[in-house]
This record gives sequence, C-alpha cells and structure tokens, in this order.
Amino acid sequence: MIRRIPVQAPRQGLHDITEVVEQAVADSGVNDGLCTLYVAHTSASLLIQEGADPSVLRDLENWMDRQVPEGDPHYTHHAEGPDDPPSHIRSALTPVSIGIPIVAGALALGTWQRVFLWEHRRPPRRRTIMVHIAD
Amino acid sequence: MIRRIPVQAPRQGLHDITEVVEQAVADSGVNDGLCTLYVAHTSASLLIQEGADPSVLRDLENWMDRQVPEGDPHYTHHAEGPDDPPSHIRSALTPVSIGIPIVAGALALGTWQRVFLWEHRRPPRRRTIMVHIAD
Amino acid sequence: MIRRIPVQAPRQGLHDITEVVEQAVADSGVNDGLCTLYVAHTSASLLIQEGADPSVLRDLENWMDRQVPEGDPHYTHHAEGPDDPPSHIRSALTPVSIGIPIVAGALALGTWQRVFLWEHRRPPRRRTIMVHIAD
Repeated sequence: MIRRIPVQAPRQGLHDITEVVEQAVADSGVNDGLCTLYVAHTSASLLIQEGADPSVLRDLENWMDRQVPEGDPHYTHHAEGPDDPPSHIRSALTPVSIGIPIVAGALALGTWQRVFLWEHRRPPRRRTIMVHIAD
Repeated sequence: MIRRIPVQAPRQGLHDITEVVEQAVADSGVNDGLCTLYVAHTSASLLIQEGADPSVLRDLENWMDRQVPEGDPHYTHHAEGPDDPPSHIRSALTPVSIGIPIVAGALALGTWQRVFLWEHRRPPRRRTIMVHIAD
Repeated sequence: MIRRIPVQAPRQGLHDITEVVEQAVADSGVNDGLCTLYVAHTSASLLIQEGADPSVLRDLENWMDRQVPEGDPHYTHHAEGPDDPPSHIRSALTPVSIGIPIVAGALALGTWQRVFLWEHRRPPRRRTIMVHIAD
C-alpha cells in the first residue's frame, strides 16, 4: 500500500507527524510488516527523535542553525533567498527515508520516539510524505 | 519476519553487531530479500562502517566528540546528565534505520562493511534492535 | 528483485545515477512498490538532492570539505592517503541506504529530486550499488 500524506509545515523546524503515519498504518490493515516513509522534497527531511521534552528539539534545531548557518559567505546558490542554501545541506544530513517495523498493527517506535517532518525553509509550506506499507 | 534483538552496549561508542544480524537473516531462511534494521531509541543509532582498522572508528568517534561536544553552553536540555544533550543530536545525524539487501542467504555487505550500534550515552545500556526481513 | 549496478565515479563528488536506477525499476515490471538502494562501500554514499542547479551540489560539497576536511591533525588513520580518513566520516554522515516508493512504474521522486552517488575518495573508482525492488 502506498499513500501520499500532505503535511502543512507552519514554520521552520521539527513538526510531529506521528499521528498521521499511525493512521496510515491502521488503515492498511497490516499487522506485522514494514512502514517506509519518504519525503519528496530537497529542503525538508524526516526524523525519529524524542518528543517528550521540547528542549531536546530546540537543542537540535539550534545545533543545525550554528553548523549550517544562514548567510555563510561560502554559499553560491542565491536563487531563492537566504534560508534556501542551508536548507539543502540540512536535508542532506538528515533522512529522506526511514523504515519502521510494524508490530501488532502499529509502528514499533521506542518509548520516547516520535516521527517528525523537519522543515528547513522559513515560510509555511505544504509538503508531501509518501508512505509505503508492506507485510 | 520481525525479530527483536537485545544488544548490550558496554560503553559509549561503536559496537559491532554484524554477527547477531547475520544470525537473524540465517534463521529467517530468506535467500534473496531485504533486511531492515531499526533502533528503537533516541540516543543510539545504527551505522555501516569499516570494521577492519580500529583507527577508522576512533577518528569517527573523535570527530563527533568535537562537532557535537558535551558541555556546549548552547544546550538547554539538562534533565539527564551532560552526555544526554549531545546524544540526541548525534542520533539525529546518523541512521535510525538501514535497509540491507540479502543475497544467497546473507547480508550483501561490501568487503569492508560491518554493522554497528552507535551508543551515544556513557553508561552501559541494554538496547533493542528491530529486524524486519522480507523476500 | 535484486540487481547490482556498477557505477563509475570519475572523481570525488556527487554523481547523478537517477537514470540507471530508473532503468532497474522499469526492468523489474513493478508498478507500485518500494525500491531500496544500498551502497556496498565505506567511503561512498547515496543522496537524494536537488539536481537542477549545480550551485546546490557545489555548496553541499564545499560544506563537507570544511566540516570534515582533509589533513585534520586529529586523524589517526593514515594507511590509504589523506583523502581516506575524511571519506569514512563523510560516509557516516550521509545515507548508505535509501528506500524510494515506486508509483506507476517509476521512482516517486519529488519535482527537483535526483539520486546521487557521493564519491568521497579522490581517485576515479568503480562502485557497486545494490537495488532491491519489491511490490
């Protein structure tokens, strides 16, 4: 089963999409199998990360802001605004696809794991996540 | 086939888990297919890397220690000790899941490739790797 | 279906391999499914990235050259020349495997997405990509 999930990213940063992915798994009727997520964009990525404490996500976003900053004079790609060059590098350093086992009809996430879309552009964006589910 | 593999990580760093994954592949009886590994934690990750020369692993661990250091004053997540904030960032930069083809009943690893659990916390930890095998 | 695709990397950097992967998908006859790519090497990786504007790839390669430089005095692995130690670290930070959904007999790539082999060594190299295709 393949499904396209539209996701509205309201701003730059990590957005929890666990519920819509879990819903796709439930709709598939697959009990034990594999759910592969794929983000069809070059300036957004996917991430499994702790979802309980917002400071974890903040530290992660801040690290990326420092290591792949806006306005680095080395950048040569200037066609789409200052948030665009780092967005491609950030998406290269984080997953475009993730395979998550399905056990007993649900994602086999660890206790603290949640699924995130990481939007690397600043303006609100409509993004598409592809979900492939197999048993 | 889905199997949970418990792994004891004796300390922070890269731990070769190739043998237990190969055993799961052998037990599955699958001849040609795909083995997907998934680590159900937010402060540990998976890695395919050279296993022959320990200096490769040491250089990799040292790079991560310098780029995502303990004690960075930017961190705001202080609930679980100084090794915890970098552990989440390190796990975001390295794979939570890896899909490895199975050929002739074994992982189709390259000549120098081994499968590692990368433990990012300092204390010894019991971790769980999920293995999904399909033909 | 599993296929080995030999790829000639003419130099260090990102090399577009979308066409040979699309050909493998077409040859499989699979209409809706999943294509998993795997690179069987520890000094090369795979990447989905924008392929339209060469400045995006240049900025990405330049960022990696600065963050994981040749000649870093911290390196201890000196068996294979100065381009080798960073090649292992760069391959750890970028994907060894990627799962891409297949829709209507083709890779479900986003509008700007292309598939790249990222060669991290300097000399020309013959590399092997494994392709697993399932419905």
